[in-house]
Amino acid sequence: MGKKIITFGEIMLRLSPSSFKRFIQADSFDVTYGGGEANVGVSLANFGFDAYYVTKLPNNPIGDAALNHLRRFGVKTDYIVRGGDRLGIYFMEIGAAQRPSKVVYDRAGSAIAEAKLEDFDWDMIFKDAEWFHFTGITPALSDSAAELTLEAVKKAKQNDVKVSCDLNYRKKLWSPEKANKMMTQLMEYVDIALGNEEDAEKIFGIKASESDVTAGKLSEEGYRFVAKELIEKFNFKLVAITLRESYSASDNGWSAMAYDGRNFYTSTKYKIHIVDRVGGGDAFAGGLIYSLINGKRLKEALDFAVAASCLKHTIPGDFNMVSVDEVESLRRGNVSGRVQR
Amino acid sequence: MGKKIITFGEIMLRLSPSSFKRFIQADSFDVTYGGGEANVGVSLANFGFDAYYVTKLPNNPIGDAALNHLRRFGVKTDYIVRGGDRLGIYFMEIGAAQRPSKVVYDRAGSAIAEAKLEDFDWDMIFKDAEWFHFTGITPALSDSAAELTLEAVKKAKQNDVKVSCDLNYRKKLWSPEKANKMMTQLMEYVDIALGNEEDAEKIFGIKASESDVTAGKLSEEGYRFVAKELIEKFNFKLVAITLRESYSASDNGWSAMAYDGRNFYTSTKYKIHIVDRVGGGDAFAGGLIYSLINGKRLKEALDFAVAASCLKHTIPGDFNMVSVDEVESLRRGNVSGRVQR
Amino acid sequence: MGKKIITFGEIMLRLSPSSFKRFIQADSFDVTYGGGEANVGVSLANFGFDAYYVTKLPNNPIGDAALNHLRRFGVKTDYIVRGGDRLGIYFMEIGAAQRPSKVVYDRAGSAIAEAKLEDFDWDMIFKDAEWFHFTGITPALSDSAAELTLEAVKKAKQNDVKVSCDLNYRKKLWSPEKANKMMTQLMEYVDIALGNEEDAEKIFGIKASESDVTAGKLSEEGYRFVAKELIEKFNFKLVAITLRESYSASDNGWSAMAYDGRNFYTSTKYKIHIVDRVGGGDAFAGGLIYSLINGKRLKEALDFAVAASCLKHTIPGDFNMVSVDEVESLRRGNVSGRVQR
Amino acid sequence: MGKKIITFGEIMLRLSPSSFKRFIQADSFDVTYGGGEANVGVSLANFGFDAYYVTKLPNNPIGDAALNHLRRFGVKTDYIVRGGDRLGIYFMEIGAAQRPSKVVYDRAGSAIAEAKLEDFDWDMIFKDAEWFHFTGITPALSDSAAELTLEAVKKAKQNDVKVSCDLNYRKKLWSPEKANKMMTQLMEYVDIALGNEEDAEKIFGIKASESDVTAGKLSEEGYRFVAKELIEKFNFKLVAITLRESYSASDNGWSAMAYDGRNFYTSTKYKIHIVDRVGGGDAFAGGLIYSLINGKRLKEALDFAVAASCLKHTIPGDFNMVSVDEVESLRRGNVSGRVQR
Amino acid sequence: MGKKIITFGEIMLRLSPSSFKRFIQADSFDVTYGGGEANVGVSLANFGFDAYYVTKLPNNPIGDAALNHLRRFGVKTDYIVRGGDRLGIYFMEIGAAQRPSKVVYDRAGSAIAEAKLEDFDWDMIFKDAEWFHFTGITPALSDSAAELTLEAVKKAKQNDVKVSCDLNYRKKLWSPEKANKMMTQLMEYVDIALGNEEDAEKIFGIKASESDVTAGKLSEEGYRFVAKELIEKFNFKLVAITLRESYSASDNGWSAMAYDGRNFYTSTKYKIHIVDRVGGGDAFAGGLIYSLINGKRLKEALDFAVAASCLKHTIPGDFNMVSVDEVESLRRGNVSGRVQR
Amino acid sequence: MGKKIITFGEIMLRLSPSSFKRFIQADSFDVTYGGGEANVGVSLANFGFDAYYVTKLPNNPIGDAALNHLRRFGVKTDYIVRGGDRLGIYFMEIGAAQRPSKVVYDRAGSAIAEAKLEDFDWDMIFKDAEWFHFTGITPALSDSAAELTLEAVKKAKQNDVKVSCDLNYRKKLWSPEKANKMMTQLMEYVDIALGNEEDAEKIFGIKASESDVTAGKLSEEGYRFVAKELIEKFNFKLVAITLRESYSASDNGWSAMAYDGRNFYTSTKYKIHIVDRVGGGDAFAGGLIYSLINGKRLKEALDFAVAASCLKHTIPGDFNMVSVDEVESLRRGNVSGRVQR
Repeated sequence: MGKKIITFGEIMLRLSPSSFKRFIQADSFDVTYGGGEANVGVSLANFGFDAYYVTKLPNNPIGDAALNHLRRFGVKTDYIVRGGDRLGIYFMEIGAAQRPSKVVYDRAGSAIAEAKLEDFDWDMIFKDAEWFHFTGITPALSDSAAELTLEAVKKAKQNDVKVSCDLNYRKKLWSPEKANKMMTQLMEYVDIALGNEEDAEKIFGIKASESDVTAGKLSEEGYRFVAKELIEKFNFKLVAITLRESYSASDNGWSAMAYDGRNFYTSTKYKIHIVDRVGGGDAFAGGLIYSLINGKRLKEALDFAVAASCLKHTIPGDFNMVSVDEVESLRRGNVSGRVQR
Repeated sequence: MGKKIITFGEIMLRLSPSSFKRFIQADSFDVTYGGGEANVGVSLANFGFDAYYVTKLPNNPIGDAALNHLRRFGVKTDYIVRGGDRLGIYFMEIGAAQRPSKVVYDRAGSAIAEAKLEDFDWDMIFKDAEWFHFTGITPALSDSAAELTLEAVKKAKQNDVKVSCDLNYRKKLWSPEKANKMMTQLMEYVDIALGNEEDAEKIFGIKASESDVTAGKLSEEGYRFVAKELIEKFNFKLVAITLRESYSASDNGWSAMAYDGRNFYTSTKYKIHIVDRVGGGDAFAGGLIYSLINGKRLKEALDFAVAASCLKHTIPGDFNMVSVDEVESLRRGNVSGRVQR
Repeated sequence: MGKKIITFGEIMLRLSPSSFKRFIQADSFDVTYGGGEANVGVSLANFGFDAYYVTKLPNNPIGDAALNHLRRFGVKTDYIVRGGDRLGIYFMEIGAAQRPSKVVYDRAGSAIAEAKLEDFDWDMIFKDAEWFHFTGITPALSDSAAELTLEAVKKAKQNDVKVSCDLNYRKKLWSPEKANKMMTQLMEYVDIALGNEEDAEKIFGIKASESDVTAGKLSEEGYRFVAKELIEKFNFKLVAITLRESYSASDNGWSAMAYDGRNFYTSTKYKIHIVDRVGGGDAFAGGLIYSLINGKRLKEALDFAVAASCLKHTIPGDFNMVSVDEVESLRRGNVSGRVQR
Repeated sequence: MGKKIITFGEIMLRLSPSSFKRFIQADSFDVTYGGGEANVGVSLANFGFDAYYVTKLPNNPIGDAALNHLRRFGVKTDYIVRGGDRLGIYFMEIGAAQRPSKVVYDRAGSAIAEAKLEDFDWDMIFKDAEWFHFTGITPALSDSAAELTLEAVKKAKQNDVKVSCDLNYRKKLWSPEKANKMMTQLMEYVDIALGNEEDAEKIFGIKASESDVTAGKLSEEGYRFVAKELIEKFNFKLVAITLRESYSASDNGWSAMAYDGRNFYTSTKYKIHIVDRVGGGDAFAGGLIYSLINGKRLKEALDFAVAASCLKHTIPGDFNMVSVDEVESLRRGNVSGRVQR
Repeated sequence: MGKKIITFGEIMLRLSPSSFKRFIQADSFDVTYGGGEANVGVSLANFGFDAYYVTKLPNNPIGDAALNHLRRFGVKTDYIVRGGDRLGIYFMEIGAAQRPSKVVYDRAGSAIAEAKLEDFDWDMIFKDAEWFHFTGITPALSDSAAELTLEAVKKAKQNDVKVSCDLNYRKKLWSPEKANKMMTQLMEYVDIALGNEEDAEKIFGIKASESDVTAGKLSEEGYRFVAKELIEKFNFKLVAITLRESYSASDNGWSAMAYDGRNFYTSTKYKIHIVDRVGGGDAFAGGLIYSLINGKRLKEALDFAVAASCLKHTIPGDFNMVSVDEVESLRRGNVSGRVQR
Repeated sequence: MGKKIITFGEIMLRLSPSSFKRFIQADSFDVTYGGGEANVGVSLANFGFDAYYVTKLPNNPIGDAALNHLRRFGVKTDYIVRGGDRLGIYFMEIGAAQRPSKVVYDRAGSAIAEAKLEDFDWDMIFKDAEWFHFTGITPALSDSAAELTLEAVKKAKQNDVKVSCDLNYRKKLWSPEKANKMMTQLMEYVDIALGNEEDAEKIFGIKASESDVTAGKLSEEGYRFVAKELIEKFNFKLVAITLRESYSASDNGWSAMAYDGRNFYTSTKYKIHIVDRVGGGDAFAGGLIYSLINGKRLKEALDFAVAASCLKHTIPGDFNMVSVDEVESLRRGNVSGRVQR
């Protein structure tokens, strides 16, 4: 039995045209299920932990399918509550070359967005748990979801559970003002923060001067500044920032840096020909949590997390279906992609 | 140019597993778009009319795809309003033999359900129109949709447009009480009513004593009683009732009867090995409206409508993609299904 | 090495929507290749003969694919000539229940329709051959194809090869008058004729009085009359007539009768739930030729042929991919469809 | 938490051409996983039990996929052992009408066939368990598998666990002689036996005189005789026999009878238009075990089991993905297949 | 209502193997419809014009499907004439890396190739129109098509409609001599010419000395020379030349230049990882016409056209399904392909 | 009729998830058939030879399908023996970017691995043959397969047939020690050896000092050393070594060098964006054998072989479906991938 880890958030039905078709061309959609915290749960289950995903799912066959999908890929579903009206949906059009991928959200009124405090027994959930992970998406879903998230982090701390948060600002869900207010409250309970420059700027107004995200140029100086500011402001034990260089929808550079209050660490960088980049950040979080729980040194932890999430970009769907061995092989430098017989 | 016909209601994204899979088995969904009044519009476009479908669609690619789908199959989309939050969705699991088909609706908050009176300029829409068709689903969507429907039928009458209504009671959308109140108001403007025994009972409390729908046995006497009551109550020019005998999810009997206040007409009955029965009733409505506008006699009109809707059961999706010639060939007795070379 | 059999005609690219979709719904077509005489060739290859199919195919990748398709299913392609402009195409919409299957031909100008006498060396082709089979479609393709067919049957007779012909009248290809003139010439060289009532009527004006094909009622008397007339007129050694009762596009009755100038034979009748009925008649011809070459008695031969072609109706595509054992199992009465483990 | 149930046996990779294609036509295979005892496990998980499936799976991605498939559909995999060389495979060609389905087994040398006694800790497995189910396939896999099965039933009895066995004779796996010897030993520990007439005859030489399975005619008298003999011989508490009438590969009659040593019970009979009949018997076993554990009366238990397995015939794959509510609805007589909205 | 634009030519059924399969591997073809002028029409419809496509389509379901395809993507089909024998077909094998894409045309005898002068009422068609676009493919189809094209451009000029022509030389359709003679006649009525170096050389013998198209090296000097010659010869208001650098079937450079008789303009260049390059030139034409009608300056017009056609390379099928906003975003420099949420 | 060439070995069923899915995500597998020597046979058939493939296939439908697959692509199957238990299988997960492709073999106990000396009549097989090709995989299958291979090469030499061998070391099948012993025996009869550095090292202990395969850096010096050693040791007339530079699973460099005992030849190098790299080495062997039989000079032969195998990387499946013309076009420098119309 692995260590017990809790992730909490929204899992959605994901619908995508295949073969680079646009939405208006599709007469079928590929079906999968995903969401930030569920994706992290799958990574952690693959890495050998008892990963429990907590959410609320509608009591209908679409909710069943989401639950089965989690179960299929090894996530524990014991604490999932059933009820509410619907499963959130996101439509995902996969881009290519100069055409960006496009996401259409249809998640309002989902079971988890309308869940209530009394739906979850956090003391039971956190019993014997090691780690709790959530993202900035969950409190953004609704006022009740924000309240729930606050309750969760408080209970986590009461139960001596480490807390990590992927800042993940979603402009369609809330305003910077609202995000700032709520996230500031939540950060009090967070040990480790993950994010990208945009998150820090949009949520906390922490902005590096020179960087330009759209143009794909990232300033290392800028990121160091952001990391320092975050730790100063919220007293995190660690801040990790993923660095995506978007050359096009098909090809990205991918690396990360971390700051523990004393040192800055920079990871290996991969140039990736992309199959599916959704869940890349979640795979990074999964790899980082795995490494930290296993007491790896920060540079190695960062490299493991980046290697894990590099592999995610080659796998269809939100989930990162890779083993520790596969990640280690890449981390150690086997980038050749030779056939394994 | 054909005569101008207006239908008004909600079109939804329809998602179905293929090959008789259950929802929880599917890793892709067949995608199509459909809804009662849109389906009738397609029939009428195929039969040569200028069929305009009126609705509100979200201004996103999923709304675009629904609009394109209508356009593809010949429906005029000039009066469709864009805006609102989402397109309604229905998940459709296609049953077989003793396993019933299963529909999961996810339509709350759709653009049309939240549309407002000022979204539509009915005088422009009804200018030079011959016919207006709606179903009992539209006013059930929301209070504003009910208000909109009432406005529409009033304007139709002011513009001297014939009005037909398929009663179509949906228990997931409203209670019998609410349905009764609203539909009673609307019926004042309706010339021709279509439905089945269950509709009349659920909405208006008109109930034939002996019939038992679930057991698949239908009493002709019962239907005559229902039709008479409807005409007495609402002064319709015609009531048409479809008679489905559900032997199983795979095989149905299908026929109809009509009453014009003087005579009862009974159609040919078909035993159908089903490909997709959704939209069967709408195909009937389309066939009936076509026949009535073209001044066919009632028995022939009824037989045309039943033949048209019989063919619908053999076509995947909600839309009845058949020509007048194909329907006429079946109506005249060519049931052999011989290859047409 | 099996006995050498020659069939000659046109093979076409066949394009079909899947899952009972109509042409206008399809965004992909299932691809296969078929044509009367090629289909017979596949049956005979499966039954152990050296079945050579003779035709002309364009020297492009579509022609290659047709050739490969024949080769894949065991037909010898040594005598196939390459050249000409195009491969004929037929679009096939598979019907269901009361909706008939629909074929759209696009075969004008095909390589075989424009082939010339000098393209084929019939003496080489018929060297050591046992049997030659063609259908009434081949001479209907074009004047040159008719000339070619006449040359072929003459050469077959000169080389002492038995000749069978499936009458197969195609109204899209020629008029009854033209068919009558050409087929009458060809029949002089034919030993065994296969067909259905319609063929005899359309081509030779031989018409049974009472039967009504469209209504699916077949008069045994009528068929006896037709068979007799054919033998009297053309001195065939055997006439075999397939009897299709089309209850619907999904369900057919299937049997056959034969007349050898002295006795009438009637086969077992099967009620078939249809997967793909194209090539049913060709599978019958294949089964009959197999049985006759192997010296089976007529009743058994007829039953084998009907059993073989019954199985064809359960297999997608034009080709009948069944073994002698599988046909024999059905012929002997094993109709239960029990799983064979 | 539901009651704990154990099933034990072999799960295989199942590969099937789609759309009624023959093996030689397929350029893709539908992939699923199934096997008698795993199938029963899925039924029981769906009905609310803690169903543990015990087997040995190779430690490779194909083994992972089988495990994930079980987990996806709710089966507990905690006792599954990893190791060995390969996962057994069965190729399944789905028949239609007069063409039988065809199974090609490729299961020799599978991990479970070569598993050893020490691979499983039966005392741990049976701790707090209510029921143990296996089939006659498991001991037939190999001598070591037979030994393992014997060990399992002994341990089950020692742990006071009810034991059911589906006789399931597989002629490809062992001879009647070998089956007789081994199964006779195993029956000593069995409380409830399930099977069909053929099983009893092939394994135990118990043969009803008049029946003729291939012809699809089943003699009730014959079955009563078989049931009586079985109980007399092995002192079972219950014998249940499924009665399949194979009209064709597409249409079957399906019912069952049971004998508890005093009374005979006969179930409702369903005429089923088949989607996938594999796993029908296992679904029956699942339904029966559910009913017996819940203390239902025998007639009702039998009807529930037959209704459950009737529904299985409408679902692709080996697993019966139905809820208690769905089975109950059918058992209570709702055979109409009406759309459930 | 947008401005009225007319395009005229041939639309074909396009059949392609999926997933980089060769023709001989395919057992299904992806189905779409396309052709130079239809493709331009779709671009213009997407950009908000009333784009009417003029052609003749066979009166069969394949013709219906082509018409529906146009309608689906917003093209007006009011002036499409029905009749003739067949829809032209092109088979498209999509290459990868060093393997070129391969097109097999099967278009002889198409409805439009055999259309007659009296099929079209050009005065009605051009009434209130702004722009007429055709390509060098249309007059190459047949003598009657050439005559029709000449009639069309004459009528366009009489109706004061701007005329653009994409030279598009097709060596399979006519000889350079024939092309020269006909195109020279047509150019008299053309305001704006589009093409590539090869077109100018093959049709008009205008040849830059140093360039080598196959080797993928393009000389800017050469293109300037060609553009100048064209304007001198035919007095065009504008000549635009697309510059494709084919590094491989998977990766191309893409840019364009234009000359208005005074200045030369060079566009941004994109390196594109290709999904489907068919229709790239047509998308360029669509973007250019849009920009010119909207009075954009030439450099911006050229960049818009190149950005639009860059996006086309990322979309399956012939049609460029992009909005003005999407093109503008790329033109303004957002090449990062970041997910749009 | 082309020259007669024999290849001998194992063909397997290949099962692959589509669209870069991992095994555990797949609910269907693409089906094809391949194996080193069969792949070479297909190349040679495409290049115009009479290529006979010799193996043993199980007498079941899976064996039929493998045989049909060979026949489809032009390979002669006259000498294929039927019998044995099963067809070997390999599961192939296609990697992307940094994720390597993964092969799971399930080939133990295959018909060919258990074939016996008396199954094949080598004198008949080699009658009039020009060339015999096998790989190091065949003797590795089993002791009896090794014995068979030895018999084959001896008989080849007795019949004056040239022998080529692709060393192809497979570590899952045998140890270096066993390989060394057996391959050393076989090499006595081999004229031409093909391989890569790893093969020579693993089988014969011939190791270049500096090279590092995993890191994708290849030392030309090292390869020269290996080639020299091989020729010194075994007196080959030619050694050819393929040089794969694995930048990632998606992009490879591909070239080759050869040594004839006097001179070293180095081929053109291609950078390939990969569709399917399996069978690349076999396509190289096919191209080389074609060139040598046709008496091409070594540099040209090598370039033809590399161009042929470069194209293989762009085609799904194991088989290289290209013509001599297509290879020649690439060899001559047309790398542009321009559409061929």
